[in-house]
Amino acid sequence: MTDLSPSRLALVPFISVADMMRIVNAAGIPETIAAIADRIETDFRRWPDFDKTARIPSHSDDGVIELMPTSDGEFYGFKYVNGHPANMARGFQTVTAFGVLARVDNGYPVLISEMTVLTALRTAAMSVAAARHLAPKDARVMAVIGNGAQCEFQSLGFHHVLGIEEVRLYDVDRKATEKAARNLAGTGLRVVSCSSAEEAITGAQIVTTCTADKRYATILTDNMVGAGVHVNAIGGDSPGKTELHRDILMRSDIFVEYPPQTWIEGEIQQLDPDHPVTELWRVFRGDVPGRTGRDQITLFDSVGFATEDFSALRHIHEAALETGFYTDLDMVADPDDPRDLFGMLRRASDA
Amino acid sequence: MTDLSPSRLALVPFISVADMMRIVNAAGIPETIAAIADRIETDFRRWPDFDKTARIPSHSDDGVIELMPTSDGEFYGFKYVNGHPANMARGFQTVTAFGVLARVDNGYPVLISEMTVLTALRTAAMSVAAARHLAPKDARVMAVIGNGAQCEFQSLGFHHVLGIEEVRLYDVDRKATEKAARNLAGTGLRVVSCSSAEEAITGAQIVTTCTADKRYATILTDNMVGAGVHVNAIGGDSPGKTELHRDILMRSDIFVEYPPQTWIEGEIQQLDPDHPVTELWRVFRGDVPGRTGRDQITLFDSVGFATEDFSALRHIHEAALETGFYTDLDMVADPDDPRDLFGMLRRASDA
Repeated sequence: MTDLSPSRLALVPFISVADMMRIVNAAGIPETIAAIADRIETDFRRWPDFDKTARIPSHSDDGVIELMPTSDGEFYGFKYVNGHPANMARGFQTVTAFGVLARVDNGYPVLISEMTVLTALRTAAMSVAAARHLAPKDARVMAVIGNGAQCEFQSLGFHHVLGIEEVRLYDVDRKATEKAARNLAGTGLRVVSCSSAEEAITGAQIVTTCTADKRYATILTDNMVGAGVHVNAIGGDSPGKTELHRDILMRSDIFVEYPPQTWIEGEIQQLDPDHPVTELWRVFRGDVPGRTGRDQITLFDSVGFATEDFSALRHIHEAALETGFYTDLDMVADPDDPRDLFGMLRRASDA
Repeated sequence: MTDLSPSRLALVPFISVADMMRIVNAAGIPETIAAIADRIETDFRRWPDFDKTARIPSHSDDGVIELMPTSDGEFYGFKYVNGHPANMARGFQTVTAFGVLARVDNGYPVLISEMTVLTALRTAAMSVAAARHLAPKDARVMAVIGNGAQCEFQSLGFHHVLGIEEVRLYDVDRKATEKAARNLAGTGLRVVSCSSAEEAITGAQIVTTCTADKRYATILTDNMVGAGVHVNAIGGDSPGKTELHRDILMRSDIFVEYPPQTWIEGEIQQLDPDHPVTELWRVFRGDVPGRTGRDQITLFDSVGFATEDFSALRHIHEAALETGFYTDLDMVADPDDPRDLFGMLRRASDA
C-alpha cells in the first residue's frame, strides 16, 4: 500500500527530442518522410472516420498558440504548436510543438512526443503525398523558395519519393541558402543556389514556396508560373500570411486539406468564398482526379491539418515502441481504488 | 556541435504524480486547497484579462476527452481531461488529467504537470472560494452526498477555510462512505456516516453533492433543501448529467463560473435560457453581493472552468520550482540556428 512506485497504468511513453532524432536517424530521414506520407494518405482515404475541427488558436501581439485535436474513434490526438515570428531574432524557435495520443475507449494518454522535428517531417510528407497525385509524372527539377527549417525536408522528401534530381534554392537571406546547400550536400540531389526567385524557377516542374514572413507577401508573381507546373505552397498558413499573387490562384486548380481551415489560413483567403477547390482526400481515394493534363497548373495550398499530425504521431508511436527510444512518464494517478485518490495522497505522505 | 545534451531552452519542468504528491504533502492538503482557493479568487477578480472559451470536447460512446485552454496574456495554459464513466468497473480512473503552462510572449511551454490529483484539489478550492461568499457565516455542519474521489478534498477544504466542524456523509455505495470516513479520521473533523441523503442533510447549513452518475439524477429533491442553506453542486457537470430537482433551482439564487459553459453542462441546463444567474467573478470583485439574507438558498452550480486549472497550475508551478520536486523533459528542439533543424538532426546521427 505504501509502495510509491507508479503502477503500469500510470506510465505514459515520452519521446524526447533526443529520442525523436534517434528514431528518425535509425530509419533514415527520407525513409521516415516516405513512411509518414504513406500513413497520411491511408488516413486521408478514411477521411469520414475522423472527428475534424479547425485548430483552436490563442492570439497575442507576439504570436499564436494553437491546439489541433482530432480522433479516428480508436485514438485521439492533439498537437500544441506556437508560431512567434519575432522569436528567431531573440534566439528562440519560431515554431515549437509537442503532441499527445490517447485511447478513445478509456481516455488514457498513451504517448507524449516532441513534435518540432516531427512536424517538419510530416509537413514534407504531406507535400509529397499531394505531389504524387498533382505533380507532372516526369518532374525532375524543383525550385524551393524560402530556405529555412522546412527546405531540406521538402527537398529530400521529393528526391526520395518523387525522383526529383535537382533542387534550385533561393532565399532573401543568402545565409539560409548556404545552410540548406551545405546540409543537402552528399544526399544525391543536385543543388543549385540561385540569386533570385526568377532564376530558381527556371526549368522547374515543381515550385515549393516555404517562406516565413507573417504578412501578405508575393513570393511568386503571375508571370513566374508557367503551364504544367505544380505549386507546393507551404508558407501561407495563417490569416494575413500568403505567398502567391492572386492571379496565380485564378489560373490554377487548387487542392486543399480541410476547406474550413484553408479558407481562413491558406492562399485562398485571397479568393471569393465560392471559388472551387478540391479536397485532397477525394483525390487520394480516387473519387476525383488529381492532375489531368500536361498544361494544367496545380496548386497544393498547404496549411497543415490535425489528421496529418495524428498520422505522424501514430507512425512515431509504433517506431518508438519498436526501437525502445522513449522513456516512461509517471503521469496518470492510479490509486488501487479509483475512488480513493485522497488515500493515495495520504499514504504517499506516510511512506 | 555534436553535443547531444539538450540546451537549457529545450527543457520543460515536469511534475509527475509522485512529485505532485510530494509537493502537496510538503505544504499540507488543506493548506494547498486554501492556497489554490486564494489564487482562484485573485484570478477571478481580473476575469476580463482572461481569454475564455468553452472546453473543446471529443465525444465517443465510452466517454469524452476535452481540452480546456485559457490565457491571461502572460501565461497560456490548458488541461487535457477525460471522463469515462465505465472506467471504474474496468479498473481505470473515470477522470485523468494533465496540464501545460506556456509563456505567451514566445510560446514555449514552461510546465507539464499531472492534473488528476491537482484537479481534485482545485475543484475543492473553487467550492471553498465560492462558499466564502455564499454560505451562512455561522455554518458548522456540511452534508456530503456522494463519497467518491472528491469527498475528502471538499470536507477538508471546508474544515480548514470555512470552519466546518462536522461532515455528514452519504453514498448509495456504503463502501465509499466507509472509505471517506476512514480517510477523514484524525483530521479534526467530526464525521457522521449516514444511511440516507435525508439523514445526511439534517442540520447541515451546507450541502455538497458530488456524485458521479452520467445521467439525469435527482440526488436532492425539493423538500430536502430548507431556507438558509448553501448548495455546493459539484457532480452535475456535463450535458445530461444533473443532480438536483428543478424545483430547487427555482427557489435558489444561482451562482456560476462561466455562463456559456454552465448552460451546457451545469444544473441550469434544466432551466429556461433567460433564467437569471450570477457570475462569481462579479461577486469576488464585490460588484454584486453573494449571500444577502439568512433565509436565502444559494446554489453554486459548479462545472469547473479553464481559469481554475490555470490558477492551480500557476500555484503548483511556483511550488515545484521552490521545492525542487520536478524533473526536466527534453521537449523543445533547440538547434543552434533556429532555421537549421535539419542540421541538428543530421549531426545527432553523426554523433
